[in-house]
Amino acid sequence: MKAAVLGATGYTGMLLLRILSSHKDIKSIAAVSTSAVGKEIEIGDPGLFNNLDGKYISIDQLHNYNPDVIFSALPHLASLPFYQDFIGKAVIIDLSADLRYEKKSDFESAYGTAHSAPEYIGKAVFGLSEWYRDDVQGSDLIANPGCYPTCSLLPLLPLFKEGYAKGNISINALSGISGAGKKATINNLFVERSENCNAYNPGKKHRHQSEIQKELDKTGVESSILFTPHLIPIRRGMFVTTTVDLSKKAEDSDINNIYLDYYGKSPFIKINNDRIPETSHLWGSNRCDISWEICGSRIILFSAIDNLLKGASGQAVQNMNIRFGFDEVEGLRTWGDL
Amino acid sequence: MKAAVLGATGYTGMLLLRILSSHKDIKSIAAVSTSAVGKEIEIGDPGLFNNLDGKYISIDQLHNYNPDVIFSALPHLASLPFYQDFIGKAVIIDLSADLRYEKKSDFESAYGTAHSAPEYIGKAVFGLSEWYRDDVQGSDLIANPGCYPTCSLLPLLPLFKEGYAKGNISINALSGISGAGKKATINNLFVERSENCNAYNPGKKHRHQSEIQKELDKTGVESSILFTPHLIPIRRGMFVTTTVDLSKKAEDSDINNIYLDYYGKSPFIKINNDRIPETSHLWGSNRCDISWEICGSRIILFSAIDNLLKGASGQAVQNMNIRFGFDEVEGLRTWGDL
Amino acid sequence: MKAAVLGATGYTGMLLLRILSSHKDIKSIAAVSTSAVGKEIEIGDPGLFNNLDGKYISIDQLHNYNPDVIFSALPHLASLPFYQDFIGKAVIIDLSADLRYEKKSDFESAYGTAHSAPEYIGKAVFGLSEWYRDDVQGSDLIANPGCYPTCSLLPLLPLFKEGYAKGNISINALSGISGAGKKATINNLFVERSENCNAYNPGKKHRHQSEIQKELDKTGVESSILFTPHLIPIRRGMFVTTTVDLSKKAEDSDINNIYLDYYGKSPFIKINNDRIPETSHLWGSNRCDISWEICGSRIILFSAIDNLLKGASGQAVQNMNIRFGFDEVEGLRTWGDL
Amino acid sequence: MKAAVLGATGYTGMLLLRILSSHKDIKSIAAVSTSAVGKEIEIGDPGLFNNLDGKYISIDQLHNYNPDVIFSALPHLASLPFYQDFIGKAVIIDLSADLRYEKKSDFESAYGTAHSAPEYIGKAVFGLSEWYRDDVQGSDLIANPGCYPTCSLLPLLPLFKEGYAKGNISINALSGISGAGKKATINNLFVERSENCNAYNPGKKHRHQSEIQKELDKTGVESSILFTPHLIPIRRGMFVTTTVDLSKKAEDSDINNIYLDYYGKSPFIKINNDRIPETSHLWGSNRCDISWEICGSRIILFSAIDNLLKGASGQAVQNMNIRFGFDEVEGLRTWGDL
Repeated sequence: MKAAVLGATGYTGMLLLRILSSHKDIKSIAAVSTSAVGKEIEIGDPGLFNNLDGKYISIDQLHNYNPDVIFSALPHLASLPFYQDFIGKAVIIDLSADLRYEKKSDFESAYGTAHSAPEYIGKAVFGLSEWYRDDVQGSDLIANPGCYPTCSLLPLLPLFKEGYAKGNISINALSGISGAGKKATINNLFVERSENCNAYNPGKKHRHQSEIQKELDKTGVESSILFTPHLIPIRRGMFVTTTVDLSKKAEDSDINNIYLDYYGKSPFIKINNDRIPETSHLWGSNRCDISWEICGSRIILFSAIDNLLKGASGQAVQNMNIRFGFDEVEGLRTWGDL
Repeated sequence: MKAAVLGATGYTGMLLLRILSSHKDIKSIAAVSTSAVGKEIEIGDPGLFNNLDGKYISIDQLHNYNPDVIFSALPHLASLPFYQDFIGKAVIIDLSADLRYEKKSDFESAYGTAHSAPEYIGKAVFGLSEWYRDDVQGSDLIANPGCYPTCSLLPLLPLFKEGYAKGNISINALSGISGAGKKATINNLFVERSENCNAYNPGKKHRHQSEIQKELDKTGVESSILFTPHLIPIRRGMFVTTTVDLSKKAEDSDINNIYLDYYGKSPFIKINNDRIPETSHLWGSNRCDISWEICGSRIILFSAIDNLLKGASGQAVQNMNIRFGFDEVEGLRTWGDL
Repeated sequence: MKAAVLGATGYTGMLLLRILSSHKDIKSIAAVSTSAVGKEIEIGDPGLFNNLDGKYISIDQLHNYNPDVIFSALPHLASLPFYQDFIGKAVIIDLSADLRYEKKSDFESAYGTAHSAPEYIGKAVFGLSEWYRDDVQGSDLIANPGCYPTCSLLPLLPLFKEGYAKGNISINALSGISGAGKKATINNLFVERSENCNAYNPGKKHRHQSEIQKELDKTGVESSILFTPHLIPIRRGMFVTTTVDLSKKAEDSDINNIYLDYYGKSPFIKINNDRIPETSHLWGSNRCDISWEICGSRIILFSAIDNLLKGASGQAVQNMNIRFGFDEVEGLRTWGDL
Repeated sequence: MKAAVLGATGYTGMLLLRILSSHKDIKSIAAVSTSAVGKEIEIGDPGLFNNLDGKYISIDQLHNYNPDVIFSALPHLASLPFYQDFIGKAVIIDLSADLRYEKKSDFESAYGTAHSAPEYIGKAVFGLSEWYRDDVQGSDLIANPGCYPTCSLLPLLPLFKEGYAKGNISINALSGISGAGKKATINNLFVERSENCNAYNPGKKHRHQSEIQKELDKTGVESSILFTPHLIPIRRGMFVTTTVDLSKKAEDSDINNIYLDYYGKSPFIKINNDRIPETSHLWGSNRCDISWEICGSRIILFSAIDNLLKGASGQAVQNMNIRFGFDEVEGLRTWGDL
């Protein structure tokens, strides 16, 4: 099978190249980049060696390549022009937010800009793998979720479905700096971020609040989340602490059973209430680890992912695996590196 | 004036030596340590140079030294045996939790152990400088607050006093690793903490939850906090994000006025709602920076301190300054290092 | 094939478990540990998930397991008692220094202690894979080299062999903190190591100086190295800068040809003089990247490895692959993670 | 006294503002910046609080301010246009390389560009405080040395003067990332630098090699240095390891006596051969710590500074103190922060 990666020189694109080059069902990879066309891939990306031949190609050259699957790791609203050329010819897995919303107005109010290809809105499946596995299997257009929504929704959705959560919910998220992408800004210099932390864009000011809320709303339960992201000095990793007023009394065993019920067969979801997750435990894996603490009438949920894997490139490949009927874990790891 | 530091080889003790050696009203410093008695201070603490003569002394030798003020940076329940020798002879500023509670049972339920000198409970003033300035001025026994309580209470108390907050409150705190002290444990090795983060001891499992709650309770407002501390890979610094259901409608200007009213003359409290604090902004200072975000009927409070300074040694010196009528900022900084 | 890992709870042991569990020629793994016997492996090592069943076993239980290959990641002189039980029954790959020297006196002068099993000295092959590939193929006792020797010798040996280097040589090495192992010490706490660096044990004071020197001496060229290791605040990674007085005039093309000649077919050695290596480029891989700078009559050599992989567990698996005729890169990566 | 800082929004400029605002002999400070004119200083630099009133001013406004001393923290060749306006009116301490060389050709060959104000070359004193104290006292134009030259020269010069060193010398230097300044580049992003290290610009490719060599040459001893700088993931700090072939036999006591002879009265030079320096020991201080290891006929020198202080802003203020007859340590610290 032939895969293409658009935006191959950014962090998520670079990771996609790494994963796909180790994937036994992928025979050929096209690395597409506007800035590096014609450059040897292993020179442009000095972390590679002996695993990817050839040069970065342009989007024009991609037409002759006839990819079976295209991963788009371009910035928001940058890949829309290319959809028309490839929709129907290849399975498209889009890591941007362009197609995550069902309504044009929801996208536009979150992103503060007009959507340039509204005709595709509502055509994609929201690729939160564990929740939309069946839809992913049947879709040629997959909108890969954001990192914060992935890590926030996985522990929350089963509690919503089972009637344990509603009303006001606080989501506090800690993210590694790679979430900001490979862009030259003073704010993300080593000197500015090391030995530093802060919240940013709380509540509506962060676009992911509405992406989380709209998925919770689909359960039919009324709720109002308040989402506060923070930057902490790690390259990769995400930790989310969610505080919920329980809508009914719960014991640890109730919660455990619910999670086992929903995720017991999911190869990347580790439920373990004996130990609060640590991002280092799953660094480099496609896992989401979940635990919780019941405090009287409230419950605190803990979830952790590698923001570049389960939060981006890893889940994208997981979706490809599901879509094409490959082993769900092929090319991905369930264990964290040291 | 003569000052003594008990526990001079731990992080808070080491910082006290640094601050006091630059303090113009302190003429002589005794560094007391059980593990290093007789060793040159500048050898035991290689960061010092040309600022502290002499050797570490024992607690016995301290009797002949006749200190005017004693800072105890010993572990919990370790300094009690010495109170009886020095209470009444010197002002004691205790950085442990031993005397922070008014009730023996509160201490014992938080710390899970019997209090070994219950006769002193209730005798100390709780040294949250901005709230107990008058009491500190008149006291010879000052219980320096914990780092998490300091950073959590400073933004919350004015809202409680002014009737904006009550009910369920979520406090999410991020702490640098120095909060765990200078103890050899695998859990705090560089390799374990770098590129890692996690919550730990949520709710009642952390002793500081009750220290925060009992101060809020003194305002007479009913509330129930849920406190979740996290470890992040910074040496120094603390960031607290608190989510509160507003008990009455508020505009930014209301909140701003309240904070200016309470803290406008406090040299270390920086109120600035134009920019969410970052711990690097106040690294090395005794500041607490505060901002907030109103989200409909809820408000998110942001506060940041240097956990070793305003959260420990700095506030201890601030309390000494208040107690002895020195300039409140003497020996301390209002600006953060780079 | 069945593999056993002694010292499975240390960093190199933990990495061996990870690599072996992904290795297609390994069907079963025994994790041997004295401290964790009977504990579920995936509980003792929370980074694992769905990749290793079962419990840690004791060395006694290992007898019934009949392993084909044993990796010993025990401290120096700790695995000797077990050699007698397993030599001849399994291939042993020892990551300690116990069998790296040909002479008892060399070991004892470097390690400052008597060797407890001198009968095995000289029986093992020194497992620097690229230099002793043939010997490794035929040996049942492989002494895996130290991290500093691996990274220092790979760029130096070809220059020695080809007559470009002799005399005084300065080796300056930078190591990540994981090189110190998973031991609770104040010196390696996050707070002590973050934002810190220093040289330690220069010259003869570091045991690896003699390990490097004895391999250079085998080339028959007279030389005297001066080795200075440094600790820098990274978890994994090693960078070595070696300054050599050239024994004859050299152009970049000469050096390039030599390296290609020696390493052109080695899958893990990346020769690239257009770009000085960075440890992040090969983080998580088993690579050694090499470049150089000719400065008149001197040459500076640059080499980088992941100290836990090519410097320990990765090279151990590479040696197993060579010994058993597996694909040399099986279970290992040639690309670095982000 | 009135001080002005040109380039007040870069890292060295920001530190100068901090130091000068705590300096008892400085009554007023002008923060000059092209990018921030008219902005409140405490808003532009959120680390400041209650220590600097007023706004950033332009270079034009500086004329009316009549400063007694001007610190220029501008990029190379950017401050020359202003010299003509202020030379003779204020003491100028220039932190750039513009006036560090005695010969135009030396500057131009190191910096690869024409010097735009050659008439000032040779007019400034090289402000390595401990070596040119008398010259600094009498000069109105002081060229503050580079960070690498400061840290390399302080241990080397006494050995040159006393006839212990000549010939080939290897200087290996490790620098914190702040040395690259506050410029938005991908190469210095947190994600690129954390968990990474590498050498860069070895030998003649780094401009500081010639700055070091020309000062060694002034001693009249023939030598040839080979300088290799490295980037390591710390914000601040520099560690230099220098390997020298001893020109005559030396004992530790000989070296110790030489250093005490040259530096025994210098408040910022800590000579301590019982412990190799660590950058964390002197973080935040203006110190240079020195130790050494004699290895037969060679000696390894270890030196460490805070690159932003003794390597830049701190030494600049030290030079001001010397020039104006203030206490040499005023505004600066001899102890390192934790």
